[in-house]
Amino acid sequence: MTPDPNGPRKVTVLGAGSWGTTFAKVLADAAADAGAQRTVCLWGRDPESMQRIAREHRNDRYVPEIELPETLEYSSDLRSALAGADLVVAAIPAQSLRAQLGAAASYVEPEAVILSLAKGLESGTGLRMTQVIAQVLAEHTQRTAEEWARRACVLSGPNLAMEIAREEPTASVVAATDHDTAAWVARCCAAPYFRPYTNTDVIGTEIGGLVKNVIALCVGICDGRGYGDNSKASVMTRGLAETTRLALALGGDLTTLSGLSGMGDLVATCSSSLSRNHTAGRLLGAGLSLEQVQDAMTQTAEGIKSAPAVLALARHHGVDMPITEAVVSVLRNDVPVHELAPRLLGRDLKSEGNSA
Amino acid sequence: MTPDPNGPRKVTVLGAGSWGTTFAKVLADAAADAGAQRTVCLWGRDPESMQRIAREHRNDRYVPEIELPETLEYSSDLRSALAGADLVVAAIPAQSLRAQLGAAASYVEPEAVILSLAKGLESGTGLRMTQVIAQVLAEHTQRTAEEWARRACVLSGPNLAMEIAREEPTASVVAATDHDTAAWVARCCAAPYFRPYTNTDVIGTEIGGLVKNVIALCVGICDGRGYGDNSKASVMTRGLAETTRLALALGGDLTTLSGLSGMGDLVATCSSSLSRNHTAGRLLGAGLSLEQVQDAMTQTAEGIKSAPAVLALARHHGVDMPITEAVVSVLRNDVPVHELAPRLLGRDLKSEGNSA
Repeated sequence: MTPDPNGPRKVTVLGAGSWGTTFAKVLADAAADAGAQRTVCLWGRDPESMQRIAREHRNDRYVPEIELPETLEYSSDLRSALAGADLVVAAIPAQSLRAQLGAAASYVEPEAVILSLAKGLESGTGLRMTQVIAQVLAEHTQRTAEEWARRACVLSGPNLAMEIAREEPTASVVAATDHDTAAWVARCCAAPYFRPYTNTDVIGTEIGGLVKNVIALCVGICDGRGYGDNSKASVMTRGLAETTRLALALGGDLTTLSGLSGMGDLVATCSSSLSRNHTAGRLLGAGLSLEQVQDAMTQTAEGIKSAPAVLALARHHGVDMPITEAVVSVLRNDVPVHELAPRLLGRDLKSEGNSA
Repeated sequence: MTPDPNGPRKVTVLGAGSWGTTFAKVLADAAADAGAQRTVCLWGRDPESMQRIAREHRNDRYVPEIELPETLEYSSDLRSALAGADLVVAAIPAQSLRAQLGAAASYVEPEAVILSLAKGLESGTGLRMTQVIAQVLAEHTQRTAEEWARRACVLSGPNLAMEIAREEPTASVVAATDHDTAAWVARCCAAPYFRPYTNTDVIGTEIGGLVKNVIALCVGICDGRGYGDNSKASVMTRGLAETTRLALALGGDLTTLSGLSGMGDLVATCSSSLSRNHTAGRLLGAGLSLEQVQDAMTQTAEGIKSAPAVLALARHHGVDMPITEAVVSVLRNDVPVHELAPRLLGRDLKSEGNSA
């Protein structure tokens, strides 16, 4: 596997939501900054929306008030969008990835590298996003799932899309099992305001990003119930501890979870009113039902979908995740929301190591 | 060393600032909750203030609007305050501890256990608070510094005093080299809203609490300059990484720094507008000079005092602490405040492990 040393000639971003659109801007700015000859194409399903974005250089539905680079190209046609793309970015929500990538798979170039931006576990299968990608592409192409797994990377970090769209300085992590692949992807998305580090721990990077959404729901619930920064910091700390236990059980590294895609992403999400999972938790904490929360929000709060899958995965591997368990109980209406925090702040006095 | 299995008969808190007063309330509430026969005495230097607090059951200067428990006793006389106290709580700012504890030392009971609440390194000596306590008590009593070190504990965690005073649920860590001593102290401060865990890593617990103040200054500066949650989460993450490196070099444990007194305390402080260090940083970031910041604040921002001592300690042990170094440069006026963040978010693309 020898990707072009000059970087991708063409990058196609599948998915024109807030993160996909923002990341397409990062890629175009990165190419301009490096003086690279590179096409960056943003693909979205709806032809009318994509024509409007192309005309206005704006995606006001998902990234309001941000002017997109002139060099960006737009498409709603999968075949032409993916033709010649040696890097494909999957900016598709976790629970739609299998269907949407399935429709695209036969147009993906056999030498392409795939970068996953989604954070979640697939309901039903419990698979991570790079696992879904490898499985789906193997079904539709000549390569095996093992071969695609080596070409499947993940980007994760403290990356609130709106802040990046506003060009506020941000760091991130690109993980791939092969270091050179991670570095190749990282170089092509390094913009003046966006700094990607590399990592070879795909499992730890994905687990950090997806369990974070569940912990953010819990911190949001604490917020909605009026708890202060002491309580929220404790939930974040113990939440990262249980995330780390799961990652280690699956083969991830401790240092990844202590890094930007673990602690960094968790802290940014839980601090921000821009986070969908944090917002969904806050509405639940304020007393809205799950249905009311879903009606009130225009975009998916991925943690709601992933939480039961995370808990199932943890049980399968014998990992204790009390915060995830409590969030799932609230989502299932087994535990009233006002009992969540007292349950997490029980009164037995223990040694920290035993209970964290 | 066999402390009374029923817990302390008398606890004296030295220092009636916001944290000392709040912790005296925790101790009195804990004793009432456990039905323990225990005197809790709050000592402050100024007789008039202490008489007013005793009369009004309030300390409006430092803990406004909070009613203190009826059972609390008050004193401005060191000899009577310390007579019979088998637990002495040092709630004295880091840079005054040596002088103030020195004045009290000859009245400290030889069997007493000492609990440190302060977070800082002593300027000049670079000693941690439990080291200062052991040294000062050894100078004035028959016991050696080694004996006092075994009786010196530290309390640290995500513990914004005002939230605890309002009885918002809070967890914390009591660390002592001897586990039974830590558990003895933890039991006597377990109130319905305050949950102390135990730990035997005194070094890690102290380092987490004191370097946090320096990192909070940096996050505050980022806030003052208008940076978003992505940047601040990165500074916290990389700040905890350098704190952990220092703690490990001094003999502390990784798990302590990932716990409530490490990550938990850092996140609570950096999230809160109640934090003095965070506030001081914000004012620096907004363009005030160090002198203007110090004039504007009624209470000490300990990180300003400790930062150069932390950097000296790190250099002595060959530990790289780029964020601490950058904060010290700003405090010394060697680097303008607007250059701090660009310096921390440089553009070399690295593997995360090598640079974190």
